[in-house]
Amino acid sequence: MFMHNKKLMYTVRVSEPNPALETLMLEQFGGPQGELAAAMRYFTQGLADEDLGRRDMLMDIATEELSHLEIIGSIVAMLNRGAKGRLAEAAEEEADLYASLSSGGESHTMSIPYGGGAALINSAGVPWTAAYVDSIGDPACDLRSNIAAESRAKIVYERLINVTDDPGIKDALTFLMTREIAHQKSFEKALYAIPANFPPGKLPGHPDFTDKYYNMSQGEGDAAGPWNSGDQWEVVDDREAQIAVDGGDGDADVVLSKGEERAVEAFADRTRSDPQTDPLTGADLGAGPGAGRTSRIPSTAPG
Amino acid sequence: MFMHNKKLMYTVRVSEPNPALETLMLEQFGGPQGELAAAMRYFTQGLADEDLGRRDMLMDIATEELSHLEIIGSIVAMLNRGAKGRLAEAAEEEADLYASLSSGGESHTMSIPYGGGAALINSAGVPWTAAYVDSIGDPACDLRSNIAAESRAKIVYERLINVTDDPGIKDALTFLMTREIAHQKSFEKALYAIPANFPPGKLPGHPDFTDKYYNMSQGEGDAAGPWNSGDQWEVVDDREAQIAVDGGDGDADVVLSKGEERAVEAFADRTRSDPQTDPLTGADLGAGPGAGRTSRIPSTAPG
Amino acid sequence: MFMHNKKLMYTVRVSEPNPALETLMLEQFGGPQGELAAAMRYFTQGLADEDLGRRDMLMDIATEELSHLEIIGSIVAMLNRGAKGRLAEAAEEEADLYASLSSGGESHTMSIPYGGGAALINSAGVPWTAAYVDSIGDPACDLRSNIAAESRAKIVYERLINVTDDPGIKDALTFLMTREIAHQKSFEKALYAIPANFPPGKLPGHPDFTDKYYNMSQGEGDAAGPWNSGDQWEVVDDREAQIAVDGGDGDADVVLSKGEERAVEAFADRTRSDPQTDPLTGADLGAGPGAGRTSRIPSTAPG
Amino acid sequence: MFMHNKKLMYTVRVSEPNPALETLMLEQFGGPQGELAAAMRYFTQGLADEDLGRRDMLMDIATEELSHLEIIGSIVAMLNRGAKGRLAEAAEEEADLYASLSSGGESHTMSIPYGGGAALINSAGVPWTAAYVDSIGDPACDLRSNIAAESRAKIVYERLINVTDDPGIKDALTFLMTREIAHQKSFEKALYAIPANFPPGKLPGHPDFTDKYYNMSQGEGDAAGPWNSGDQWEVVDDREAQIAVDGGDGDADVVLSKGEERAVEAFADRTRSDPQTDPLTGADLGAGPGAGRTSRIPSTAPG
Amino acid sequence: MFMHNKKLMYTVRVSEPNPALETLMLEQFGGPQGELAAAMRYFTQGLADEDLGRRDMLMDIATEELSHLEIIGSIVAMLNRGAKGRLAEAAEEEADLYASLSSGGESHTMSIPYGGGAALINSAGVPWTAAYVDSIGDPACDLRSNIAAESRAKIVYERLINVTDDPGIKDALTFLMTREIAHQKSFEKALYAIPANFPPGKLPGHPDFTDKYYNMSQGEGDAAGPWNSGDQWEVVDDREAQIAVDGGDGDADVVLSKGEERAVEAFADRTRSDPQTDPLTGADLGAGPGAGRTSRIPSTAPG
Amino acid sequence: MFMHNKKLMYTVRVSEPNPALETLMLEQFGGPQGELAAAMRYFTQGLADEDLGRRDMLMDIATEELSHLEIIGSIVAMLNRGAKGRLAEAAEEEADLYASLSSGGESHTMSIPYGGGAALINSAGVPWTAAYVDSIGDPACDLRSNIAAESRAKIVYERLINVTDDPGIKDALTFLMTREIAHQKSFEKALYAIPANFPPGKLPGHPDFTDKYYNMSQGEGDAAGPWNSGDQWEVVDDREAQIAVDGGDGDADVVLSKGEERAVEAFADRTRSDPQTDPLTGADLGAGPGAGRTSRIPSTAPG
Repeated sequence: MFMHNKKLMYTVRVSEPNPALETLMLEQFGGPQGELAAAMRYFTQGLADEDLGRRDMLMDIATEELSHLEIIGSIVAMLNRGAKGRLAEAAEEEADLYASLSSGGESHTMSIPYGGGAALINSAGVPWTAAYVDSIGDPACDLRSNIAAESRAKIVYERLINVTDDPGIKDALTFLMTREIAHQKSFEKALYAIPANFPPGKLPGHPDFTDKYYNMSQGEGDAAGPWNSGDQWEVVDDREAQIAVDGGDGDADVVLSKGEERAVEAFADRTRSDPQTDPLTGADLGAGPGAGRTSRIPSTAPG
Repeated sequence: MFMHNKKLMYTVRVSEPNPALETLMLEQFGGPQGELAAAMRYFTQGLADEDLGRRDMLMDIATEELSHLEIIGSIVAMLNRGAKGRLAEAAEEEADLYASLSSGGESHTMSIPYGGGAALINSAGVPWTAAYVDSIGDPACDLRSNIAAESRAKIVYERLINVTDDPGIKDALTFLMTREIAHQKSFEKALYAIPANFPPGKLPGHPDFTDKYYNMSQGEGDAAGPWNSGDQWEVVDDREAQIAVDGGDGDADVVLSKGEERAVEAFADRTRSDPQTDPLTGADLGAGPGAGRTSRIPSTAPG
Repeated sequence: MFMHNKKLMYTVRVSEPNPALETLMLEQFGGPQGELAAAMRYFTQGLADEDLGRRDMLMDIATEELSHLEIIGSIVAMLNRGAKGRLAEAAEEEADLYASLSSGGESHTMSIPYGGGAALINSAGVPWTAAYVDSIGDPACDLRSNIAAESRAKIVYERLINVTDDPGIKDALTFLMTREIAHQKSFEKALYAIPANFPPGKLPGHPDFTDKYYNMSQGEGDAAGPWNSGDQWEVVDDREAQIAVDGGDGDADVVLSKGEERAVEAFADRTRSDPQTDPLTGADLGAGPGAGRTSRIPSTAPG
Repeated sequence: MFMHNKKLMYTVRVSEPNPALETLMLEQFGGPQGELAAAMRYFTQGLADEDLGRRDMLMDIATEELSHLEIIGSIVAMLNRGAKGRLAEAAEEEADLYASLSSGGESHTMSIPYGGGAALINSAGVPWTAAYVDSIGDPACDLRSNIAAESRAKIVYERLINVTDDPGIKDALTFLMTREIAHQKSFEKALYAIPANFPPGKLPGHPDFTDKYYNMSQGEGDAAGPWNSGDQWEVVDDREAQIAVDGGDGDADVVLSKGEERAVEAFADRTRSDPQTDPLTGADLGAGPGAGRTSRIPSTAPG
Repeated sequence: MFMHNKKLMYTVRVSEPNPALETLMLEQFGGPQGELAAAMRYFTQGLADEDLGRRDMLMDIATEELSHLEIIGSIVAMLNRGAKGRLAEAAEEEADLYASLSSGGESHTMSIPYGGGAALINSAGVPWTAAYVDSIGDPACDLRSNIAAESRAKIVYERLINVTDDPGIKDALTFLMTREIAHQKSFEKALYAIPANFPPGKLPGHPDFTDKYYNMSQGEGDAAGPWNSGDQWEVVDDREAQIAVDGGDGDADVVLSKGEERAVEAFADRTRSDPQTDPLTGADLGAGPGAGRTSRIPSTAPG
Repeated sequence: MFMHNKKLMYTVRVSEPNPALETLMLEQFGGPQGELAAAMRYFTQGLADEDLGRRDMLMDIATEELSHLEIIGSIVAMLNRGAKGRLAEAAEEEADLYASLSSGGESHTMSIPYGGGAALINSAGVPWTAAYVDSIGDPACDLRSNIAAESRAKIVYERLINVTDDPGIKDALTFLMTREIAHQKSFEKALYAIPANFPPGKLPGHPDFTDKYYNMSQGEGDAAGPWNSGDQWEVVDDREAQIAVDGGDGDADVVLSKGEERAVEAFADRTRSDPQTDPLTGADLGAGPGAGRTSRIPSTAPG
């Protein structure tokens, strides 16, 4: 069960409204690396996790992320608070609004639809989608996904810190950024506390293909590094050896029933592009005066 | 700030796994009328509300909806728990899995991508999107949106209750359904406690158009009701009187600069469809033997 | 059946092209509170409504909304008309286009993909989605949704009126805004003409939970209002009394078959995070010189 | 301005409810090739078209497509009408509902969220999106897009006709299918009535690259046809001649300022993957007993 | 199988970073008419085409489009390269970043989430979606879709050429634009090499409806052109003759079972809007002082 | 530049068509963990990577993933090949199609819109979206994202292997699954070859918050593990100490100008919910006979 306290986890002090900065801050409110994505990622994982210790951790961090969502949402609301009043009570501020508009400023874009509220969109106005949550219900994978997600969120906060000099905002963002580091550490511990987590799952890979590195991008600049050199790797450079690596013919086949075969053939016949013709085409007709402007003479032409 | 207690707000007792039922339950987990939509709707409204009393109410109910999200998510997880184990530890259950698949059952659709976890999708597999949240930052509107949303959620729960006979699930769904009724009542109170909430906003409507009812759909079956009859309404049946109701010419115009006008005219000239021709077309070419199979004779034909 | 007359329902007179303003106007063309959303909301409800009188009203208003879509789309087209010509016939206007671009203006963003046409996107460029339409097939809910939607549309028009001083646009927007007020009134009449519309549906709520108000957000600022005080409400402040309100254990359970249980246990064992270890992690390896730069010594280390 | 008549453009007679068939019919209601997509495609093109004759045609056909949307929506509503009653008035039909559910049938998926209404979704439940509308504001392109769209709609109707034997539905679908053929013919006429419509636009292509055909997919099965053989085409088979076809070095470059260069170098240095090391990795740690279960020895190991 | 060479198909030389221009270029990287859409369109068609010659062509062009995706992506990366360094290494450039931000410039919008990388979004920031790919598995339709898509891509490149004067970018864009012309020609040849491609599919249309043109948009400005005049067309102007064109009653019906009928009636009764009442509504309550501020008197009032 | 060879990287041998299985296979074609997501992830990262060695690796693997996309797409096409013929050439197979439909089978859902082609959708029919690609332009993050993505793809392949017993499909899927393991190893090497990759970026965290673990989810079941115990962690259990951890007042503030303050106050006054009233509400009106059925008496009641 969730509970709420009216105080924030971290105090938010904004020195002045700034709708353009607010737009950028939305990235961590309703964007893919933002706090809603983080909270939902861990909360939904926690609901179905069979390991009660890990589940406790997931719920701890999900709850903290919800508290972070409230912090970044409060920053958004404060940065918008002036625009909100001005837009709703426009009479006394009209000249100002027109000026702001005519400069082509981005700021009103978010005010028109959301009225200064904290909308679950990213900094380009795209609504948050659960397509951002990549959980698949396997702990060894989901923890890796969490580790990666925390590292990404850390960097997006770093970028936001780099584009403002409002000290109160910088402060709160630094707190949020720091917590992503701490969360990444917790998820790292939980992952490596699964004794055998690589490769994830139960099925082993096929031994012929586990250690091969296919050099698919060739030409000047071919490089070596620990990802494709050393004892572990067998590099396959030969283009021919990259084809049909199973030793088969490299084709795709399916066994059809007689009826299916007949139907497929009928369809193929009916829709074949005859390679022996050089047909007059729509492009020919449309290639300008002399081509397409003819009257329609359906029975005999073109011919 | 949010906090969490490991107990649920309502106990969840599921009598057996049932992936097909689980799929339906997802509607209230990650669907448009579901608990995440509710929680996010009220939480984001609360963040920017200037009325502290209403804000408190919004946070109370948002927090309860998060607790409901946990309940419905737990139902989902329980209904899926069997499938999850079977899919991950397939060896001993293979025959069963193949049988389930070959019956074309829906159940594995959600297991393959989410592995039995509680995914934020609706019952058709569509990821949750913040496009479901219709808040616009005006309390008189947002409260109406909340009232409507609660009524919709009530009905979706009623439908889910109607498709299961698992008593534990029916119980928990009845609790969730009932709370939507209570929430609707709170939002109704908050709306009508705004002394002048209709019409919302500051600008009055134009007096000529406030009480007109345009009878746009005509023919047998034209009906009257309080929505278009009585002292309040002036019904406009005459088609002519529905056109250009401002008394203007009913056209759209814009004043262009000379340069713009020249450019628009050049564009129009270049892309005009000449009404005087009856051109040979691609459809003519493609209308079967005798038409399109001709050889291409680019220099002379068609003439 | 739909029919069309080439005249608009309201004359559109735009004083000059203005792509930045056009971008904002798109909110009511292809945005969530816009005219397509309104028309589709009522049209699709009307198709399946069993009450022929209400169905007539829904089709009347749907058809009017389509006529409004045409008005706002014509405003968009007029505001864009200059840009369209300039972009397509660039030769004589190149310097101007570069200047406009280098100022970082938003205006060309919509010109590149849509060429000055009226695209079904909101003011941030997000394509219209039927996820905006929240109809669920229950009249008592759908009418509430319509009431809320009309109130929201009224406010968005009010905001758009507040950001332009073009008198012709202000005029047309005022007409559109006023009609939303009239439509809301019709939907209100239709809702309350359903004798028993609250709560919607057939199932009553559980009497234990209909009148409770759970104070989930606590701390300084706890407020009272008609939404949680008075005879009707029983407020539950005690955190303990908010947990497992059914009197159960607050846990989630499911009865598994033996085979399912074995599979779940096998999965749990295989993926458990051992709480007794303090593993070396990827974060440790990556924490800078001295940690991750070691050579790989797979057989013996670390350990 | 739009008007509506309560009669359909084509009578709809359905012989019995069938939710599974209804689900398929949704493809032409809220799917990418469906009637809403068609109506919106032509209506929005019409709004901004400078050619008044073509604009008239676009509005004619857009209006007819709206009337088709009403026909297919009425089929959907009729096929759903039984399920709607049963779901809302469940008491007397419970056993039936459970049976339908337990068979894993798809049919209730759409009933739960939409209650038997006509939702703007495709046959898989995906909400309609304006991303389906590919208009770009150039008539020579948009007419081609319309031609293609009509041909696709024709085929989807053909497929739907192939999966039902309800004569009333077959009848109505055949009408709808036929009209797509007629519309395609109109759009063909309008396209080829633009005297010079190929290539569209104003800029000519670069003469070096207009007639080349790059044979990018090689190996057994290389085929010739009018698309790459004949006088018109120069086929480039030589892999080397497909690289850097401008004769340049085939690299991407940008001229940076000194400050930018310094910043880019600093970033590159900080994030370089050192090719000379063979680091211990997370995968090594996770590769099972003996690797990842070690205690954490942060100060000295791994060393 | 795909292979890669590190050289580009066309050399990219950018004269200076320009994030605002970069944003526009994204339209052809991750936009609906962009290179990913093109590549995926042809590649997926090719996978299932039964005609091996056409399949070869589809794979040739799909592979070339992937090579184009790399070119436009390289332009994007070069235009962003300065911003990327500055944002990541902010210390020495802070003043500059703040200035750029305070001007409300669009440029950082894309930098915050993607850090100067080449993201698969359009110029408004909307993520690429496969909803852009309109293939339906019928060659006569898919080739028409390809022809239309190539023509659209040609125009979007033309617009991009019109908004930059960087000669290296203009060069590369001209190459890409030219190749769209060439591809359109190939697809035209392949379409018209299907001997009978119009109408597509197997089912003929209904002879009563193939040649009718319904004049659905009437009033001043009714126009004639080859799309609705000439021997081929029978124009239906009479509004009555546009209704129920099958000669039926123009209604929608379904035959219900007794049980279904009872359930539908029960639902209809329960949710009927009584046309004989003029109910007090929520709008009345909310219409300001004197209406909604009354105390609640539940047992006796109103009435 | 990309090139293509007509042979597959791995031979595909399917023993019989199976549309239900095909639907599941789509998960790795157009789903979030599928091959298009993988290819686009690495390809777009490679385009902007400043480290040429890593860039080479990214292009190698991106190209291999495209070749995998072709393999899984070929499986999809083969499984669909029968349905495709039957649907297009329906005459001789009608009875069969009706039977398949009436069983409510999922299989035709994909055939209607895509005709047996390989569509870029997941197994629930949701179109692929670039929202699945989580690259942010920082190598230390993107490599972690890649590691996680490869682990997820491995598991989804494992699940697909578990639901089929077609040996040819099992074979090809095992190859694809194995390559994900190999790719994960390469990305691990590349990540740990960045000497200091944790925390990513340049800004250090705030020392007060790096090592704290907030126990946000409390109650029975609180667990300890390496993620919150040991020397590294300081656990904060006290609820009070989780609030306003900066030592401030835990509120959100912004400094408004006089004009802004006036406007905000005006807005707040106008939209305040008066806590002192107990208004009659819409819910009261709608609560059944005796409440809402009254005639409208606007001037005096309710009083």
